[in-house]
Amino acid sequence: MDSLSTTLAALADPTRRAILARLASGPATVKELSAPLPISGPAVTKHLRVLERAGLIARSRRAQWRPCTLEAGPLKEVAEWAEGYREFWDASFDRLDDYLQTLQRKGRGHDDEK
Amino acid sequence: MDSLSTTLAALADPTRRAILARLASGPATVKELSAPLPISGPAVTKHLRVLERAGLIARSRRAQWRPCTLEAGPLKEVAEWAEGYREFWDASFDRLDDYLQTLQRKGRGHDDEK
Repeated sequence: MDSLSTTLAALADPTRRAILARLASGPATVKELSAPLPISGPAVTKHLRVLERAGLIARSRRAQWRPCTLEAGPLKEVAEWAEGYREFWDASFDRLDDYLQTLQRKGRGHDDEK
Repeated sequence: MDSLSTTLAALADPTRRAILARLASGPATVKELSAPLPISGPAVTKHLRVLERAGLIARSRRAQWRPCTLEAGPLKEVAEWAEGYREFWDASFDRLDDYLQTLQRKGRGHDDEK
């Protein structure tokens, strides 16, 4: 699988995104990451393996408690890919804006008729 | 599944991203979308259904040829989510920058010693 697909698949899970959000406030051990999650330890380990394979987290090999850290590189790739479509969501807001202006003009038209 | 997870799962496939890239240049029929793809018609239809469920494309119900159009709203949600981590990828570039400046300073140090 290409790296962007691997990243997007890893991110397509609310628990894995919650783990990344937790790591945004600093490195954490598996125990610390598991504490607030309503899932089993082995389930957390499985999610961490998916995130690690996608290069979204790194686990220290040296320290015995092996803290996890956030690796934001793949998230940059996701942001850049999605930003490539910005003109399309801007365009739909422009269309909405045009529509609202048309309504306003029509409104003013009615006022003039009074 | 939450809408962001549905979107990310739909995007985690190079064929589906290729379909969105094609639709960025304008609406297309299923036949037009299938032509450049090395997969069967039913496989294309399946991908379109995933994209449609994620709200990434819309298919006209009126026209008999039912053209597909890009719907960029969910892509905005993806970009905004990923942009929330910008400080982390900027931070890793800052660290690289610091490292390079340290190397440069060390280099200058050696020059002074000459």
